[in-house]
Amino acid sequence: MQDETTIVIEAKTGVTAPKGFKAAGIHCGIKKSKKDLALIYTGSPASAAAVFTLNKVQAAPVLVSKEHLNRSKKFHAIIVNSGNANACTGEQGFKDAVIMATKTAEVLNIKPDEVFVSSTGVIGETLPMEKITNGIYAIVNCLEQDDHLASAEAIITTDTFVKAASVSFDINGKTVTIGGISKGSGMIHPNMATMLAFVTTDAAIENETFQKVLKDVCDKTFNRIVVDGDTSTNDMVIALANGESGIENIKLSSNECKLFSENLYSVLKKLSIDIVRDGEGATKLVEINVEGALSDKDAEKAARTVALSPLVKTAIHGEDANWGRILAAVGYSGIEFNPDKFEITINEIPILKENYFVTLPNAIANQTLKPSKINLLLELHGGNGKATCWTCDFSEEYVKINGSYRT
Amino acid sequence: MQDETTIVIEAKTGVTAPKGFKAAGIHCGIKKSKKDLALIYTGSPASAAAVFTLNKVQAAPVLVSKEHLNRSKKFHAIIVNSGNANACTGEQGFKDAVIMATKTAEVLNIKPDEVFVSSTGVIGETLPMEKITNGIYAIVNCLEQDDHLASAEAIITTDTFVKAASVSFDINGKTVTIGGISKGSGMIHPNMATMLAFVTTDAAIENETFQKVLKDVCDKTFNRIVVDGDTSTNDMVIALANGESGIENIKLSSNECKLFSENLYSVLKKLSIDIVRDGEGATKLVEINVEGALSDKDAEKAARTVALSPLVKTAIHGEDANWGRILAAVGYSGIEFNPDKFEITINEIPILKENYFVTLPNAIANQTLKPSKINLLLELHGGNGKATCWTCDFSEEYVKINGSYRT
Repeated sequence: MQDETTIVIEAKTGVTAPKGFKAAGIHCGIKKSKKDLALIYTGSPASAAAVFTLNKVQAAPVLVSKEHLNRSKKFHAIIVNSGNANACTGEQGFKDAVIMATKTAEVLNIKPDEVFVSSTGVIGETLPMEKITNGIYAIVNCLEQDDHLASAEAIITTDTFVKAASVSFDINGKTVTIGGISKGSGMIHPNMATMLAFVTTDAAIENETFQKVLKDVCDKTFNRIVVDGDTSTNDMVIALANGESGIENIKLSSNECKLFSENLYSVLKKLSIDIVRDGEGATKLVEINVEGALSDKDAEKAARTVALSPLVKTAIHGEDANWGRILAAVGYSGIEFNPDKFEITINEIPILKENYFVTLPNAIANQTLKPSKINLLLELHGGNGKATCWTCDFSEEYVKINGSYRT
Repeated sequence: MQDETTIVIEAKTGVTAPKGFKAAGIHCGIKKSKKDLALIYTGSPASAAAVFTLNKVQAAPVLVSKEHLNRSKKFHAIIVNSGNANACTGEQGFKDAVIMATKTAEVLNIKPDEVFVSSTGVIGETLPMEKITNGIYAIVNCLEQDDHLASAEAIITTDTFVKAASVSFDINGKTVTIGGISKGSGMIHPNMATMLAFVTTDAAIENETFQKVLKDVCDKTFNRIVVDGDTSTNDMVIALANGESGIENIKLSSNECKLFSENLYSVLKKLSIDIVRDGEGATKLVEINVEGALSDKDAEKAARTVALSPLVKTAIHGEDANWGRILAAVGYSGIEFNPDKFEITINEIPILKENYFVTLPNAIANQTLKPSKINLLLELHGGNGKATCWTCDFSEEYVKINGSYRT
């Protein structure tokens, strides 16, 4: 992937940055007073790609959106509610998700299977359908091209800030834009754990190619972030490409495709890292780089195990450079490596060198954990495999938030 | 396994309950003032069995004890220090562990490879060998047959209470006794995660049979407890059998073997559950029973995933009967099941029946989580597979303890 410093991300714009997309976010009454219904719309038909949760328990909107992705070739809209996940709601839940698509199609004068449906929030309660239906009638009148944040605001739950980004770049002299919004907070883990992201672009790219590119980029962004290891019933990333930039269709493995991937990566990386930064109770963003593993897969396994370890995450929270816990976590990650060669660098300061040589007194090493952004480099000196994961620390606040989510 | 109510556990006795075993626990100076050195000794030579950590990073005492188990047929002693794990200490650490065995052998007039060595505590610091050597000279004079708790006290670290148990039963008219001590607290997870247990018995059982029985029972006890999923560099269970009960050698698969296994299970179950009860910051003991899985292995996978979920553990701490989180955890455990048939019973009160039927209002369901002992029954209605795991809740206190372990 291209160094992201060459790509300028617009952090304050989102799904309406690309040409031809409108969006809206309103309060329809699922939550007490905050926005809880979002609509993303493109007049020109769009190709689509999507990645869904791997949880065996899949919420109704996941089932309906999957069905639409398989059935339809072109798409126009994404309807999203927050505050209620419509998960574990059985047949009624499925019917409600279908109604959400149907009503949205009706007000936009499109077909139901050209609409994606998404929900996030409490599990096990049926949707307040009257509120949602009235909301759908209302939201269609709020669609705007330059209101970047209303839709981003309407999809969040316990998030403390909205997550939106966009980037523009040239393909054969034409400007192409990719925009996106996401929500996370708690339960964030590889394989689409309770996170939603919606991506729009005015690039032209066919469904099959788009799907490959999106999957590949998600594997290196949303699937590399870890908050607590729980994966949810509702997670999805949906991307729409309406072709309004006027470029030719992007072909797989072409230079244009590479450029598109790099820029998509930069947007999704920004949206991913924002999710980690906003992890429930998080006070520090931790980037874990593993190098020198026998394979990239091994490196990813090691990085992910460290990112998930409650002992490592609490030590980082307590600013305790407890390298033994990091080494022990790599030790139980299941990969082959030589512990004698293990080295740790925190924020560019080596704290452990080969043969368990501790370079600094504890009190000094602990200083490396003071910043709110921590870069953990773990060198295994065994091969060329490398990988990056992002996580956050584990605070008392996390326990408080999650012990009383429904009260 | 036999219903444990028919087996009477003596909770206040430990490794010196079986005939011919002596033990001691003293302060040698690794910790500030608490006991930090334990010795367990049998004059009659004992057969042995052991289970060691699966972490790739193995502490020096693990390596030395493994070597002795392979090399020797008979054993006389276990020497254990707490306060320093002698892990990630390289060659020096290995030499120090060998010296611990050699000095213990010297003062007891036995061979070094008849001694097991064990350590627990901080990782990455070399042992204060002068203090330990002086301690070994001193502790041999403290060996006693009726001091059940000194050794149990000397092996603990952040534990808040000592863990000891024993049971007696008859084999062919002769009384056989099994005793044991353990330490845990934090980092407790299947596959021997930072926990130590030492088991003694006056039964007669050969090494190979003993190893099979111990492994089997550990898989259903110590390997079924979960505190936070981190596994450590030092964990081991060591068991000695000196034959002083006067029974014939126990043969594999015999009735005697079944009886011995059942009683060993009851002792190790007690020691395991005590470890969970004493999990760092734990306020509730949670027994998770999964029934109706396609296989026992699937049931274990599901139970373990639920036991590890920070979202489930924090919800239990907050007394929030958030069944969606439990179902979602089973959903990402990787097993096949039908979510529509999933049922949850908490402390014998059904809270979720098939087709997501919620039996009680939230506020009432939450009452089922008030007690300090929680029994969670998860029924999948898919097959005959079942399994039990034990875990504890996740409190703010856990984060506090683990954020400042070394400060």
